[in-house]
Formats: sequence, C-alpha cells, structure tokens
Amino acid sequence: MDEKHKQLDWYGISLRLHEKYRGKIEVVPKVPIKGLRDLAIWYTPGVAEPSRKIKDNPDLSFRYTFRWNYAAVVSNGTRVLGLGKIGPEAAFPVMEGKALLFKYLGGVDAIPILVNERNPDKFVEVVKALEPSFGAINLEDIESPQCFYILDKLSKELNIPVWHDDQQGTALIVLAALINAFKVVGKDLRNSKIILYGLGAANYAILRMLRAYGVNTGKILVVERPGIGILGPNHPLLNDFKTKMPHWYEASLITNKEGVQGSAEEAFRGADAVIAASRPGPDVIKKEWIKKMAEDPIVFSLANPTPEILPEDAREAGAKVIATGRSDYPNQVNNSLGFPAVFRGVLTVQAKRMSEGMFFAAAEALAKHAEEKGLRENYIIPSMDDSEAYIKEAVAVASEAMKEGIARINLSFNELVSEIRDYVMRPKKYMDLMLSAGFIK
Amino acid sequence: MDEKHKQLDWYGISLRLHEKYRGKIEVVPKVPIKGLRDLAIWYTPGVAEPSRKIKDNPDLSFRYTFRWNYAAVVSNGTRVLGLGKIGPEAAFPVMEGKALLFKYLGGVDAIPILVNERNPDKFVEVVKALEPSFGAINLEDIESPQCFYILDKLSKELNIPVWHDDQQGTALIVLAALINAFKVVGKDLRNSKIILYGLGAANYAILRMLRAYGVNTGKILVVERPGIGILGPNHPLLNDFKTKMPHWYEASLITNKEGVQGSAEEAFRGADAVIAASRPGPDVIKKEWIKKMAEDPIVFSLANPTPEILPEDAREAGAKVIATGRSDYPNQVNNSLGFPAVFRGVLTVQAKRMSEGMFFAAAEALAKHAEEKGLRENYIIPSMDDSEAYIKEAVAVASEAMKEGIARINLSFNELVSEIRDYVMRPKKYMDLMLSAGFIK
Repeated sequence: MDEKHKQLDWYGISLRLHEKYRGKIEVVPKVPIKGLRDLAIWYTPGVAEPSRKIKDNPDLSFRYTFRWNYAAVVSNGTRVLGLGKIGPEAAFPVMEGKALLFKYLGGVDAIPILVNERNPDKFVEVVKALEPSFGAINLEDIESPQCFYILDKLSKELNIPVWHDDQQGTALIVLAALINAFKVVGKDLRNSKIILYGLGAANYAILRMLRAYGVNTGKILVVERPGIGILGPNHPLLNDFKTKMPHWYEASLITNKEGVQGSAEEAFRGADAVIAASRPGPDVIKKEWIKKMAEDPIVFSLANPTPEILPEDAREAGAKVIATGRSDYPNQVNNSLGFPAVFRGVLTVQAKRMSEGMFFAAAEALAKHAEEKGLRENYIIPSMDDSEAYIKEAVAVASEAMKEGIARINLSFNELVSEIRDYVMRPKKYMDLMLSAGFIK
Repeated sequence: MDEKHKQLDWYGISLRLHEKYRGKIEVVPKVPIKGLRDLAIWYTPGVAEPSRKIKDNPDLSFRYTFRWNYAAVVSNGTRVLGLGKIGPEAAFPVMEGKALLFKYLGGVDAIPILVNERNPDKFVEVVKALEPSFGAINLEDIESPQCFYILDKLSKELNIPVWHDDQQGTALIVLAALINAFKVVGKDLRNSKIILYGLGAANYAILRMLRAYGVNTGKILVVERPGIGILGPNHPLLNDFKTKMPHWYEASLITNKEGVQGSAEEAFRGADAVIAASRPGPDVIKKEWIKKMAEDPIVFSLANPTPEILPEDAREAGAKVIATGRSDYPNQVNNSLGFPAVFRGVLTVQAKRMSEGMFFAAAEALAKHAEEKGLRENYIIPSMDDSEAYIKEAVAVASEAMKEGIARINLSFNELVSEIRDYVMRPKKYMDLMLSAGFIK
C-alpha cells in the first residue's frame, strides 16, 4: 500500500471506531453510592452545608467540589488541526480527544466546551462568565491573530490559569527540546543564531518564550511566506504590518538586529538552529538551505502530518539534531508531554494563574529528566510513555506556583509528589480495571 | 437528639465527606486504551476524519462524539435550594450533585456549568454560545421571574432541548402524582377546584402545565402571600402586577373565573386539592383550612425541608391523599423521578427540543407505572429505586419525540427499550464494580 492508501485506511478505522463508541469520555460518580440514602449526602439536604461555606468564601469551591481538578478544553473551531475554520461542532471530536488525553496522561477532569462565537471580545465574555465552573482553562484551535488577544485578555482577567496549547503547549516542548539540543551540540542557546520559519501561533509563542528565557532575540531571524521573507526593523512592509499583522510587526522590532533582508535561503546562512512551524512538507525547507547552516545544525521541523523537510533529507544535508512532530521519528516534539503535566501541577495547588516561571520550570524539568536518562542526538526529549517525566514536570510547576505565591494551597514536597503521582497513575489503573472487567471492550 | 441537633450532625457529616472526596463526579475514558498507539485513533491524526464529516453536516457531531449524551447543569446561583442568592461558586456543590444524579439515575453525562452572570439577556447569550457543546441543557436554581424569560427564550432559540428543573421538573412529578391522586379519590382532575398555594417557579410551571393538559383553569385559585391573597381578574392590584409581577398578572387572567377575592382561608372552601409550593412550614397552611375543603381532599405540601403543613396534621384535618417533598413520608414528589428519565429519553433520540406532548407522555408513563403496581392513598407515585419507572418514562419521552418528528434519529421500539435500559442500568453496575474492586472506597 502506498502512503495515500495507508492514510485512507487509517481514517476509515478511526471513523468506524468513533461511530462505534459514540464518545471517548464519560462522566461517572467518584463517591460511593451504596443506596439511595447516600444521595441525601451528595444532593439535598446534605449539599446545603458546603454551599453555605462557599458562600462566605468562594475559594472553598476548590475544597468542596471537583472544581479543583476540572478543566475546560475551549474552542470556537476557527483553526482546527490542519482542517482550518471547520466550526465548533466539527471541532468537537478533537476537543473530546484532548479531554481524553488530559485524563489519561494527567489525571485531569477535562471536558470539551465548544463556543459558537468568532468575535474575540464576545468569545472572551463567554469564557469569563464560565470562570466559576473551572479550575483552569485550556484554549485550543483558535485562529491567529485573534488567539493572541484572547489569551492575553483572559490571562489578565481570570483568577484561574489560562493556557492556549497551540501557543504555550508547543513552545514549552520546543524549549525543553531546544535546551537539550544545544547541550548535545555544545552551543549556547541564549546566544545563537536561530531561525523561526513561519510565524503562526506556535512560533510566535516560541519567540516570546525565548525572549523571556533570556535568549538574545537580536540574533533570531523570523522568516515568513514568500514575498515577505525575513522580518526585521527595516522590512519594506513594516508599516503595513503595524496595522494588519501586529505580531509580525512586534517580531520585526525585536529580532534581526543586523537588519538582514531577503528570502528564506538568505536566513539559513550560518544559522545554528531552525524551528519550522509553517505548513506541511516535504521540501518546504530545502536541503540546500540546511547545507548553508553553521556546524552541527539543529533542525526542528514541526509541521504535521509531513514535516517541512523530511528527517532523512535533513540528515543527508548535514543536520545534527533533528526533531519533528511525528511519533515514527526520534525526538517527537509533542504537546502531549506538556499540557497534562502543566495542568496537573496548577490544579493540584489551585494556582490563580500561569507565570513565566512556572512555564520555564516545566520545560527545565522535562529537559533535565531526559538529560538524566542520557542525552544523545536521537534522544533530547522524554517519550510519551514516560510517566516519571510527567510527574517531575507537574511537581516543578506546582512548586514554582507555591514559591511565587500564586497557589491557593501549599503542600509539602512529599505531599505534592505523592498526590501528583496518584493522579497521574490512577487513570492507567482505572483502564486496566475496566478492560479486565470487560466494562470497556 | 432533637430535630435541630440531628440536622446539625447530618450537615457535619456531609461537609466532612465533601472535603474528603473533593468532588462527586469525574471524567474518565470510555474507549479502550491498550497503549499510546490507540491515542492516535482518538486524537491526531485519526480524529481528523470525524471532524471532516461533521464539517459537512454539524448534526453528525451527535454520531461521532459524546455530545449525544452530554448535558449541562447550568446555574448562576441566584436561587439555590432554600439558600437564596448565594452566587455561582456556592451553587457548585448543588450542580455537581445534580450531575451525579443525572448519571446514577439516568445514565446521562452531565457536568456543572456555573455562569457568573445575573442579567437574563447576557445569561441567555452565554448559554446560546455553548449550544454546540451539548445534547441538552438543564437550567437550575435561577431566581424568578427571570427564570421564566430565560427558559422561554432559550427553548425558542436553541436546537437542543432546554429544561428548567425547578419549573418543569417539579411540574412533571406533580402532574403524575395528581393524575393518580384524583384516581384514588375518584374525581375528575380536569374539572376540579384546585388551589395553587404560592406562585414561584414550581407552581407557575404547574399552572401552565395544567392548562396545557386541559384542566379547567377557571376553577383554579392561586393564593399568594398575605396582603395579596387570591389572584384573579378583579384583584385590586391587577394593574401593578402587569408591570411588576407579570406571572401573577398572567395567572390572574386565566384562573378564578368566579372572581373570588380574599385571603388564603377563603380559597380553601370546597377545594378538591391544594398544591402548596411556597415556604417552609410547619403551619404555613392551617389545619382549619384543610377542614374547609371538599370531601376526600388532596394535599400536596411541597416545601423543603419542612412541608407547609405536616402530613400528620393534614391527615388529622381530613386530608385523604397527602404528598410532600420528603423521603421520610409516603408519596414523595421528587424531581429525581423526572429529569434523569426525561433527559435519557431526549438524548437517546437526539431530540431538537422539548414539547408539551413529551412532557405529558413522561407524566402519564410515571402515573401508569404506579397504577400498574396498585394505587392506594399512600402510593400514587413510583419510588426513586424503581428503575423500571425510569425506563418506561424515558421510552415514553423518546417515542413521543419520534412521533412528533423532533428526534434526529429514529429507533424501533425494541432498540429504544434496550438502549435506554442499558444506559439506565450501567451506572449501577459501574458502581458495583468500583466498590468491589476497591477503586471507590
């Protein structure tokens, strides 16, 4: 079977299984119900008492309900996977899948919330109104540039952490992988020539994150589509960017201090690393461009389902460390290594918001875990089945939240590790039980 | 221990258990996950295919996701239980408890949605924006009269069923119980003198429902608080009602055709039944009033935690059939007999809305089930542990939806019964498994 037929068959299987199971998640009791009398504890009249307590102190809603572990996966369906603006209903399978990953990998009670609203301000109003429901919000698959405004505004206005996985999730894993890639090649991440190829939600977040992490952004070159080329302070269209593409404008001012102009090819000359998050390849990035990079080049080619340059081509052209979004190549840059653990961390200590410190703590914990297992060209980032990586990452996030004073509760380190481990491991035990009891078939 | 101390102790236990379990529900996978490879079916890349199909036909979101079984329990916390306007956070334990009942009794995947919005129009906008998320909406504990407007508006504008349990839920069970109470006393429900004592959300809904059911509302008397007394077409404050209490105005025009004026006591003279849903008793309704009713009076005294008149007092005063909201007396009028089955019915056939016909089908199925088991003064309504009652009620709702052409899918009668039975019984089997495996302790 050729590549295309394999793909079709895979999709056929997925469609049949989606139709068979009619949903990937369900809502179940987690308290013992041995008879109807127990319902009088969990509903009227017993429930009145926790409600009275919360009335006097709304933060106690985290103590007496599952709010502390309850996250919404929120999308309006304006930029779903590679499918584009397919609408909120069509985004449902994706958000439900994400909720499944949240639970299976992070022990988080996540549910899909599809919002029929494209206007960013109205979208913000809807999510704001839902704040008392949740312990944290995960935004997903929202078109850019609106997603930048929505994330910034909600982060400022809500007293629970807000996360946009297409921005921060990807940036987190890229940073962890980048830290280790630079270790492997023995260069200094903070003072190297890095190309960001494409400036969508992912690379824009990566740029902001690299700057906050102390990377010299003057040496970063951002390359946009043909006709635009390398962004920078003297780009001929700079004034147009200001009103029409404010994130291009912002990038033009903080990168490319030397004012390099020209096409993509020009940017690659002497670069130490390229992070491509643009459009599916192959051959969006050319072998010849890689050949122009500095010694031991780092190539992150993250487009799905096909990277901008295939790993075998990048290798042939001289790339030293190669990462993609694919599970069938080494060094998979996969958001699933991030969001379940980050949410596990913030929820466990009832954090009021995300901070850069918590973000970097997560990335460094991931990087360090891989380093402890032994870095090499083909191993710069933990794999998805490495539960210890999730636990360390979540503990790092929670510890940092407590340190920064933005946690609602404080736990000792041992309590933290023990509780996080329980919640990360429980869904796997649950699945084993369900499968062995034949309750899930 | 006296009554007050028992109450305190009960609340103490409830508070401790709420703190211990930190939530009553959780979100879990319902598909088999035997390894990380399975996640590629349920998330990327596999999930793209159901999304593509739904893009072309949004109704397919009911086929390929758990939307078909997913309901929101929505409140803004403006009138919670007997606690009043305690806010959305404080309403959380109640809504989570309700979600637990939805699953345990009806097999419905329900989640709490707390909305920080008191303005009715803005509240409606938020819920409207969430339409693509859910298969049905349950409104709960919203102050009156705003709740009437909100229910009417959302019912009209959404393409999924909307239910306000404090209105329709109570009205449904009252109707079922009333049908059987009138059978027990051998009178004609549709042409009797009925008193509605108090015109809050419950009795307003009961009035509308009785009218739609063909009851002669000209013989109904609505009694409001002291100083207002019996509503009617020549009530001295009628013009004030028009602007300030439109539901009182509406009731004044359709009830009390004889134009009786006066206080509560006056209303009871010769009445066949009283339905009280006003404020906690005892002695809100007096024994002497009951004595003035017609032969074999029917007394529904529904205030919680203490009925307007205690059953023993009502009995002493000559009441023949007595119902309350309490589980420790016979004939408990309990919403839990309604909403889980109604939602089971509408969700199973993916109904586009609720209809009066579906409502009456539910009430009659409940009434008929009790009748088949043998009506008597102390048994006019099934008990909460009678799963067959739920199944029959859900089947009746679903069948009526299909008959009226407002179901998105059509099932044969046998398919319907089998699927509804599976979903009603599954949570009990689940709980047995969890308890016996020690997964829930």
